[in-house]
Amino acid sequence: MADATTNRQIVLASRPSGEPRPENFGIVEGPMPLARNGEALLKTRWLSLDPYMRDDMNAGHAYSVEIGEVMYAKGVSDVVQSNNLALTVGDVVVGETGWQSFSVTDGVNLRKLDAELAPVSTALGVLGMPGLTAYGGLLTVGQPKPGETLVVAAAAGPVGSLVGQIAKLRGCRVVGIAGGPEKCRYLEEELGFDMALDHRTADLPKRLAAACPNGVDIYFENVGGHVWKAVFPLLNMFARVPVCGLIAHYNDVELPPGPDHVPELLLAVLDRRLTVRGLMAGDFEPQADEFRRVVAGWLRSGQIKYKEDVVTGLENAPEAFVGLLKGNNFGKLLVRVSGDGLENSN
Amino acid sequence: MADATTNRQIVLASRPSGEPRPENFGIVEGPMPLARNGEALLKTRWLSLDPYMRDDMNAGHAYSVEIGEVMYAKGVSDVVQSNNLALTVGDVVVGETGWQSFSVTDGVNLRKLDAELAPVSTALGVLGMPGLTAYGGLLTVGQPKPGETLVVAAAAGPVGSLVGQIAKLRGCRVVGIAGGPEKCRYLEEELGFDMALDHRTADLPKRLAAACPNGVDIYFENVGGHVWKAVFPLLNMFARVPVCGLIAHYNDVELPPGPDHVPELLLAVLDRRLTVRGLMAGDFEPQADEFRRVVAGWLRSGQIKYKEDVVTGLENAPEAFVGLLKGNNFGKLLVRVSGDGLENSN
Repeated sequence: MADATTNRQIVLASRPSGEPRPENFGIVEGPMPLARNGEALLKTRWLSLDPYMRDDMNAGHAYSVEIGEVMYAKGVSDVVQSNNLALTVGDVVVGETGWQSFSVTDGVNLRKLDAELAPVSTALGVLGMPGLTAYGGLLTVGQPKPGETLVVAAAAGPVGSLVGQIAKLRGCRVVGIAGGPEKCRYLEEELGFDMALDHRTADLPKRLAAACPNGVDIYFENVGGHVWKAVFPLLNMFARVPVCGLIAHYNDVELPPGPDHVPELLLAVLDRRLTVRGLMAGDFEPQADEFRRVVAGWLRSGQIKYKEDVVTGLENAPEAFVGLLKGNNFGKLLVRVSGDGLENSN
Repeated sequence: MADATTNRQIVLASRPSGEPRPENFGIVEGPMPLARNGEALLKTRWLSLDPYMRDDMNAGHAYSVEIGEVMYAKGVSDVVQSNNLALTVGDVVVGETGWQSFSVTDGVNLRKLDAELAPVSTALGVLGMPGLTAYGGLLTVGQPKPGETLVVAAAAGPVGSLVGQIAKLRGCRVVGIAGGPEKCRYLEEELGFDMALDHRTADLPKRLAAACPNGVDIYFENVGGHVWKAVFPLLNMFARVPVCGLIAHYNDVELPPGPDHVPELLLAVLDRRLTVRGLMAGDFEPQADEFRRVVAGWLRSGQIKYKEDVVTGLENAPEAFVGLLKGNNFGKLLVRVSGDGLENSN
């Protein structure tokens, strides 16, 4: 077992072809990094695992992780040493830490957290990147209006569940698509969705059409694949499609067989005047303060709920991530790397 | 030959499968319609032929023409009888007339023209629906910024040529794609495009990439097909794709063979945060007064040029329309139905 000054890292061992496997990751142990002048040493408490990281494992992207490099991730950390005037030992911060137990920061792109306002883990979920994605993507791209119908894919995930709840607050009819009866029940009974459908059901297109008698005005896309195919024919005139994730395609090694449906898609965009627009949390950074203020208010008032799915121990991150891509998580997937009862497990 | 009171109409005789042929149209002659109380009788002077009319010939759309019905079209007409207080014999108006020599109006959705401001035929082109499509589509959806690169398809057409010229006025690098060396020369030499490429060239993707060394920020889509495929890989982060027309697909009877490129398109929308948005002139109706004022000013100052391709005689409309879909026209395609030297030809 490593001692308390060992830095444990999960690195990309090889690039997956299709579904990633635990063997695509490696564990490396080394000395704790040093905080030089102006820097602080962070001890990771919570690590965020998100589907987009699958894309980081592929070569040739702006965000590609190199073989042997630490996987990227946002984390919530404790400041354990500081040579930075703005950071004090004991501060809890959120920032880019990577899949590792310690990291060093120069204080840039880091935000201090106030544990009295909300549990610090929410800075990775409902009050973090997934939350901002949902808030900005829905309000800026989706532009929900009262009485409209919104369909959201991966609806029980951290983005989808917030999208649906905000759309309800805005007066929309909200239909969620999720994996399995337990998640569907949660959406309808706990989060107040008007309806939730299991994407594994054989007659999804038919059941979705029945659930959306007035068509679909906003489709918040997190999935692609057969879920996209079920929603596409239902899109109304002037419908908006914020494209936030495509978990069905991250593992694709080749395109699906034909025919090529691109002309059909473009003709629908033209005839129905659709707006299809890609988004990521970073696009809404100028709205981030507003987002945190508004959503924190909804959390306090109980108008918005959230769910976390916690895995303990950094060494379990690869397996948890592989499961995430299969939809095994229920709520925001977090890895507890250190903290209560874990101080010596690193 | 019909006399001066005969109404000649071009009707949809049968629905085309693939490319329309002259046999899909029929000519019907009958008595001039009667203008009842509140109505006026219009004699068509100019008729507009536009690619979107191919879609009107298909069943099952909101704008489908029924078999035996007069084809829809906008026209410029003379008021020849009036029982409407707002219209006077001698007025020249633009409105929905259909492919026929006479029509009756209740004055709704009609606009009077002032021949001193601009030739009345421009109300069907640069100052009409194609112009508004270009103006609204480029400025509202395309949002051009100085220094950006714009590619426009069907660039020598009435929409494309205005899109390119406005983008030049906004400080963009403008690359046009058109059919044949004559049109390309016109774009570069007469309209001041930075470059024009013939879509029939074998190595279009390579030549387009060379013409856009900084990628493509706005792709104004009028075509689809192989032109879309050449532009798609060049789209920059946050590129905008106003989808205005898809002339390559209006004649499609089935989807092209696979693989299915939709996942590739959606992944690009996500990774590059593209905005793909369909538009039609009617979407920009609230901007129409502004559009006419601004573009008429540019016409007077010579900053914007336009070209018309005139076919004489209503009976030649079907053949001209079939040629339009093959890109045979050079400039806005108009049918001169009556007017100087044509008074008795109807």
